[in-house]
Amino acid sequence: MKETNDRRHHVVIVGGGFAGLYAAKALRDAPVRVTLIDKRNFHLFQPLLYQVATGGLSPGDIASPLRAILADADNITVLNAAVEDIDPHRQQVWLDDPAPAEPLPYDSLIVATGVGQSYFGNDQWAASAPGLKTVEDALEIRRRVLAAFEAAEREPDPARRQAWLTFVVVGGGPTGVELAGAIGELAHGTLAGEFRQVDPAQARVVLLEGVDRVLSTYPAELSAAAAESLRQLGVTVETNTFLLDITAEAVVVRDAASDALGRIPTRTVLWAAGVQGSPLARRLAQRGAAELDRQGRIIVGSTLTVPGYDNLYVVGDLAHAAHQTGEPLPGVAQVAIQQGRYAAGRIQARLQGRDVDAFHYQDRGNLAVIGRNAAVADLGRLRLSGFPAWLMWIFIHIAYLIGFDNKLLVLIQWAWNYFTRNRGARLITLRDDEQPVWATAAAAEPAPSRQRSSAPV
Amino acid sequence: MKETNDRRHHVVIVGGGFAGLYAAKALRDAPVRVTLIDKRNFHLFQPLLYQVATGGLSPGDIASPLRAILADADNITVLNAAVEDIDPHRQQVWLDDPAPAEPLPYDSLIVATGVGQSYFGNDQWAASAPGLKTVEDALEIRRRVLAAFEAAEREPDPARRQAWLTFVVVGGGPTGVELAGAIGELAHGTLAGEFRQVDPAQARVVLLEGVDRVLSTYPAELSAAAAESLRQLGVTVETNTFLLDITAEAVVVRDAASDALGRIPTRTVLWAAGVQGSPLARRLAQRGAAELDRQGRIIVGSTLTVPGYDNLYVVGDLAHAAHQTGEPLPGVAQVAIQQGRYAAGRIQARLQGRDVDAFHYQDRGNLAVIGRNAAVADLGRLRLSGFPAWLMWIFIHIAYLIGFDNKLLVLIQWAWNYFTRNRGARLITLRDDEQPVWATAAAAEPAPSRQRSSAPV
Repeated sequence: MKETNDRRHHVVIVGGGFAGLYAAKALRDAPVRVTLIDKRNFHLFQPLLYQVATGGLSPGDIASPLRAILADADNITVLNAAVEDIDPHRQQVWLDDPAPAEPLPYDSLIVATGVGQSYFGNDQWAASAPGLKTVEDALEIRRRVLAAFEAAEREPDPARRQAWLTFVVVGGGPTGVELAGAIGELAHGTLAGEFRQVDPAQARVVLLEGVDRVLSTYPAELSAAAAESLRQLGVTVETNTFLLDITAEAVVVRDAASDALGRIPTRTVLWAAGVQGSPLARRLAQRGAAELDRQGRIIVGSTLTVPGYDNLYVVGDLAHAAHQTGEPLPGVAQVAIQQGRYAAGRIQARLQGRDVDAFHYQDRGNLAVIGRNAAVADLGRLRLSGFPAWLMWIFIHIAYLIGFDNKLLVLIQWAWNYFTRNRGARLITLRDDEQPVWATAAAAEPAPSRQRSSAPV
Repeated sequence: MKETNDRRHHVVIVGGGFAGLYAAKALRDAPVRVTLIDKRNFHLFQPLLYQVATGGLSPGDIASPLRAILADADNITVLNAAVEDIDPHRQQVWLDDPAPAEPLPYDSLIVATGVGQSYFGNDQWAASAPGLKTVEDALEIRRRVLAAFEAAEREPDPARRQAWLTFVVVGGGPTGVELAGAIGELAHGTLAGEFRQVDPAQARVVLLEGVDRVLSTYPAELSAAAAESLRQLGVTVETNTFLLDITAEAVVVRDAASDALGRIPTRTVLWAAGVQGSPLARRLAQRGAAELDRQGRIIVGSTLTVPGYDNLYVVGDLAHAAHQTGEPLPGVAQVAIQQGRYAAGRIQARLQGRDVDAFHYQDRGNLAVIGRNAAVADLGRLRLSGFPAWLMWIFIHIAYLIGFDNKLLVLIQWAWNYFTRNRGARLITLRDDEQPVWATAAAAEPAPSRQRSSAPV
């Protein structure tokens, strides 16, 4: 790192997601200098990532270069790097710098790395059942889903063909609901008439959920509306169902009530269940500097700082902030944005010798989309489902894309998809482009894992 | 393959590029059944691939699913597969089918696989200097170019930093000119103001060309206009210059006139020189069924068929069709489209007992784009350069996107880029998303190859 004689208060922000980016934006005119560190060169509009995974949008439509967003903020330096360690005592972070490794000192630190996928101790499932956290994840899901239809078209055996046409989504939260709904739409709408040997409408999309309803953090009536919308899109919702195993050609499930085991032949399993904290959180815990919850998130106090370090903020999905209701706040963009802005504001206030009140999340409601024309909205007293909720979802997401360069394009692409039921970004891109898609579908098969001997259905 | 009782004449088309797709489209209402085989699931609008490589467009903007394009053509089956062999005597092709491998019989065969990159016997350069043939190639170039700027921003040593900021494009044909121009624009326009340690305008883009001018198939006055436009975009054009070696940190070149050796320190080398025929062409040659030219293209007669096989057509870039002028026709979309349509027309004519005249290419002119506002157009007597040629280039390319689903979006994205100088698709996507971009830039370094001992500049 270049030496600096800049004596301004130095704010280091780790992570350019919603929390980190909005913290940086809130500091653009403040008398501080800011270093925003991210290992990626773009901010990702994560709520639309499932659209990339199902061919509706291209990655470029929902990503903006961090440098472009912050180009005009002269006090902000964007650093494309990974943070490997934090020393909260000496107030410095270590980057993945080549030798000589000089730590980067800070006056205030905002950690906003987000969370990763958790397989609940079954890390071997990661290869069999990709999650939906990164652009690469989304492209991998897109590849597997589209390649499965191609493989089905070439498969002469009816049973094996149906396994290719069966898609299992694990986890009935917002991501799982979005993914399952979008695959249902793809099969029953977009792909209609494109195949000669198979009928994509025979595809089976199964959404597995451990508890008794999907979207369990929403009011029960909205869960029911979401489940009904999913059914209309051809999605089979299996509640009270636990995933026991993923084999090369099936998933094994257990019914929570009867304890009966079931087997669903499938070649495509997608993961939308469970998150875990970042490696950086574990480093902080190893140093004894922070306490983690069961998901590996960092437990913060009412000012979103780590107890004992008043200048070390954790915001966004990585923060376990439970001071408001006793429950940790949910890992959604709204929470992350408000937390990022709060941290930026508190840093400025303290520079002026003021303190600020505890962080208070203003819940403006929750929205989950299921598909074309279908969403659910929980706005406190007002609860919407179906087309009105979907319209609201569209407008809110468009509004949030303001400030980024892709808003107009995404709007048009959505409108286009809406009226034509088309999905323009249906490329199967390969790691090895010399392989036909068919072969990649086969290569995407989960490696054989221990097969349960207990009776399948 | 499913058994068929369909007794219609069976046309098999291998490859869904311009030649193959336009052949298929021309047969959609003919009394034949058609099987279009491609190992990818999309048609790629190759003339705009350089825009993907430089962050101006997303892959989805210039690709359309083959199935979607041909969904309404009931007599056409799209097969997602690789063709491994052709037996022109028995009239059958072998696919990469799983066991049992049944060959697919045909009555007429249209081979339109296109060509690959040629490194002129230096295949070890492929890893160091990616070409621009596939979507994956374009994303790899985008990753390397953008990651090089990021690496420069973090590099304290001035000489090493300048090497990161030096981009060498090998080959001064249309692809090389487009790529070099677009990188020049990226450095001098789009990225301006986004970095804090380096000035992207200090980037050096070097275009290497072996002969005495770029775009050597164009009239000399247009080559000169193109070179001048390149210079205005900050591109250094090195004509009469041969590439001798690519090392980890430089390219070694030789001046054709003086024989002097030169060394250009660079971390990013892009390949836009030379093509070679497909493996399928080599299979046909090994069978003694076809003769190849030096580039490995299949030599065809005046009806675009392989001598001795009147129902075996080769069209598009893979065809060496020299009957018209004695020179093989150039590997451009216009030739491919006309050849594809000709083959489709001749097949239909012969079914009706008629024969048709030899293929005659109607040259409607050639266009090459250099950058924003700059192109050259050779329309026979009319020769344009600069803005008028650029406008013509834009409109012709938009017109050709008609019939595909992305036209509107691409138009808007272009307009957007034009007025804002922005490039919205500047994502560095990684194979291993846990690595920071910086590390990928380093990983993109060419493997050390034998270093020439002869004196560098």
